[in-house]
Amino acid sequence: MTLRDRKITCIGTIEQGASGAELRVAEAYRAGLRGLGAFSHAVILWWAHETEDAAQQTLVLPRPYTGSSGNVGVFATRSEARINPIGLSVIEIAGMDEAAGILHTYWIDTLPGTPLVDIKPYFPASDRVEMAEMPDWAAGWPQSLEASADFDWEAAFK
Amino acid sequence: MTLRDRKITCIGTIEQGASGAELRVAEAYRAGLRGLGAFSHAVILWWAHETEDAAQQTLVLPRPYTGSSGNVGVFATRSEARINPIGLSVIEIAGMDEAAGILHTYWIDTLPGTPLVDIKPYFPASDRVEMAEMPDWAAGWPQSLEASADFDWEAAFK
Repeated sequence: MTLRDRKITCIGTIEQGASGAELRVAEAYRAGLRGLGAFSHAVILWWAHETEDAAQQTLVLPRPYTGSSGNVGVFATRSEARINPIGLSVIEIAGMDEAAGILHTYWIDTLPGTPLVDIKPYFPASDRVEMAEMPDWAAGWPQSLEASADFDWEAAFK
Repeated sequence: MTLRDRKITCIGTIEQGASGAELRVAEAYRAGLRGLGAFSHAVILWWAHETEDAAQQTLVLPRPYTGSSGNVGVFATRSEARINPIGLSVIEIAGMDEAAGILHTYWIDTLPGTPLVDIKPYFPASDRVEMAEMPDWAAGWPQSLEASADFDWEAAFK
């Protein structure tokens, strides 16, 4: 088993724009956006730069959102403080300007200035699970990205 | 915009096992698996080690699967030859042995010995898009991971 380190390249940043969020792709990589606008959604990989220093040591952490006792492994959470601090967000594509290297979306759960690692089109054939089961502690969570937009997360986890 | 490089750590490998595929997590990271078995599906990030050398230069490539003319940007495909050669696969969790660091699944679209980068639980609330639209060239593709298992990809793209 090879455990040697690999290098990743930041291809842009994620910022808050005038009406939602903007993914700003560096000029060198903009040609890679061609045709992406024909998809309704994309999978975004980003670098959790605010937590990267703490990430290497975190293997077990309190169960997220529940306020309950009990720990859970980091690979059973979406915590940003993980061995490889790569976040994953599915976004709706609200618009794209290939020449300017800007991908518009309504919302993304990243801090301003977050480094962008990758953009992939959302393929229902490989990304959309019809029947996904969750642990008891996540019972009642929304069943889709669309349902999440209308869900009162604060009330559910206060 | 910071474009400095980041380092990622290989946390294990993906191999073919006796009955399907096995994700083998290195001993140092096994505690991070705790609780993952309560989810039915996981999102796997892996390093496309077979194509990494070619990846840095690929921005535009022939449209995948279609056999048609026309190029498309790499960020509009799931090609492994991308700036950061990180593959993403959603898998069904068939079983887990936390002590041995093994996650069993029926199938994953990776080559034997592929380095494992991250494991995340599949959250319908953030990963499952109810209404995802695809470009014309992908019309007729299956609408879910479950439907893909029964789909004759070879016949569709011969």
